Amino acid sequence: MIPRQFADKSVFTVAANRIKDYIQHTPLLSCSAINHICGCQIVFKCENFQKAGAFKSRGAANAVFSLIESGFNGSVATHSSGNHAQALSRVALHTGIPAHVVMPENSLTSKIHATRDYKAQITFCKPTLEARESTLREVMAASGAVEIHPYDNIEIIAGQATCAMEILEETQPDFIIAPVGGGGLLSGTALAAAHFGQCVRVIGAEPAGAADAYESFKTKAFVPSVNPKTIADGLLTSLGQITFPVILAQVSDILLAGEEQIIDAMRLLWERAKIMAEPSSALPLAVVKANPGIFKNKKVCIIISGGNADLDHLPWLK
Amino acid sequence: MIPRQFADKSVFTVAANRIKDYIQHTPLLSCSAINHICGCQIVFKCENFQKAGAFKSRGAANAVFSLIESGFNGSVATHSSGNHAQALSRVALHTGIPAHVVMPENSLTSKIHATRDYKAQITFCKPTLEARESTLREVMAASGAVEIHPYDNIEIIAGQATCAMEILEETQPDFIIAPVGGGGLLSGTALAAAHFGQCVRVIGAEPAGAADAYESFKTKAFVPSVNPKTIADGLLTSLGQITFPVILAQVSDILLAGEEQIIDAMRLLWERAKIMAEPSSALPLAVVKANPGIFKNKKVCIIISGGNADLDHLPWLK
Repeated sequence: MIPRQFADKSVFTVAANRIKDYIQHTPLLSCSAINHICGCQIVFKCENFQKAGAFKSRGAANAVFSLIESGFNGSVATHSSGNHAQALSRVALHTGIPAHVVMPENSLTSKIHATRDYKAQITFCKPTLEARESTLREVMAASGAVEIHPYDNIEIIAGQATCAMEILEETQPDFIIAPVGGGGLLSGTALAAAHFGQCVRVIGAEPAGAADAYESFKTKAFVPSVNPKTIADGLLTSLGQITFPVILAQVSDILLAGEEQIIDAMRLLWERAKIMAEPSSALPLAVVKANPGIFKNKKVCIIISGGNADLDHLPWLK
Repeated sequence: MIPRQFADKSVFTVAANRIKDYIQHTPLLSCSAINHICGCQIVFKCENFQKAGAFKSRGAANAVFSLIESGFNGSVATHSSGNHAQALSRVALHTGIPAHVVMPENSLTSKIHATRDYKAQITFCKPTLEARESTLREVMAASGAVEIHPYDNIEIIAGQATCAMEILEETQPDFIIAPVGGGGLLSGTALAAAHFGQCVRVIGAEPAGAADAYESFKTKAFVPSVNPKTIADGLLTSLGQITFPVILAQVSDILLAGEEQIIDAMRLLWERAKIMAEPSSALPLAVVKANPGIFKNKKVCIIISGGNADLDHLPWLK
């Protein structure tokens, strides 16, 4: 059953309409060589071409625009290792409101530079969830800013859902696979499939080294992300109070892949499909390669969630 | 005046129709950050997503399919440092005819592997034009194969023109810029603009270290490519007997960029636009950045001719 706050599909159609002039309608691409290797028909939804380089621009735009529609004229704040930071800063700059971003001190240099280019006030902190949350509280207390949570926010989830809505307007695959960190993209995708899909199953892909969503899904009890170890830097966070129930109710399965499988899939995407996927975005392809029995001869749509890779430290050049 | 053999636009519409089910209709993408840096409105025609990773699939398909329509059932041969080799091998494999490819021994490993994957018979030679041509003659004598020249062939040029035909169906820019090596893409682009464009000027982009087309264009007398030195490995060849007159008649200008400018533009495309351009394909953007006076506030379409970069040796990691 679709959770109550998302039961009315107008939450999603309003979001799509609200942000459509601000975001890219990203292309679906395919690659014969990868289809041959995987034994199925894959289309890639290329959110690496989204504004600010990732799907996060969808949710950030929907959240900020809906605040402004309701008369808001303060400042916004968040903690983010990168893609949500860039997305929120960009939409804040566009709408003329100040943005405060708490970033872990080990964030990619390219993501820090891009966030700074969008004129956000950056505060660095230790790379732990506790430090991120306590620093954010301090920043909000000092600035009076309103938090825009990176995923546990109804408008963020509705915004991320617009990615799968675009997919489903063009094709109705057997499966859509999205990476899962905090679950904003995965829950939005599953809700879009429930409202606009025709028997489309949604699967989450998670690193084996950060398998808290997998454990939560299998045990039906929230398991936090503790000491995650993975190259997929976008997927280190725990599920949220809003995203977890949506995922439990609407997602078919969560599948895991290891670090070598992620790096192999990333290189395959770059080399054969010419799609610059960041490690988190290579994960769904790693999951397809690791589970040929599930996907054989199926139509599979993989969401390439972002392309903000570190071009000075490619993982296969070690 | 349009050269006689290309005066009838049906050469191009027939080519487009002949190859349409075999090639990708590639997307046009844009990047606000790059527009901001360059001071103009750029769209990128992403032939890096073309079959076999480059626009060369268009010409190769048109040449082979038109041979087959005329009753041909022999084998085909060519010399190529990579992209034409892959494109010809792929279409030959698809149509069931043997392909013989002469490759310089310093070709990228990834391009050699891909050509081999398409089941072509590869013969290696020294990396000079003389060695390529003499080795090809030997291969043709031994096999009886028909040469499909990489650019100096009417059907190849008509095939490459279909790229700009797709652009012009979607947008009518002030400029289209294509890289120039042998001139197949540039002459096809200029012919498409002449037949299907509305005041669209076509510009060639060439490395300063391989400026034979520039010299030929400026002096109106053929200058061969001798000892070219550039990272843009797709642009080492001389203009052809068919391509040079077309370029003289139909191209507005040829502009140059240096090696550092090419590498900077390549990194900019990868980092900000998430477009994996090979060095030859980064050249048009380098030319735009180097000539702000020409392109300021204009609508510019850049053909990203291919994406077959060497992921083990990225030029900024030195």
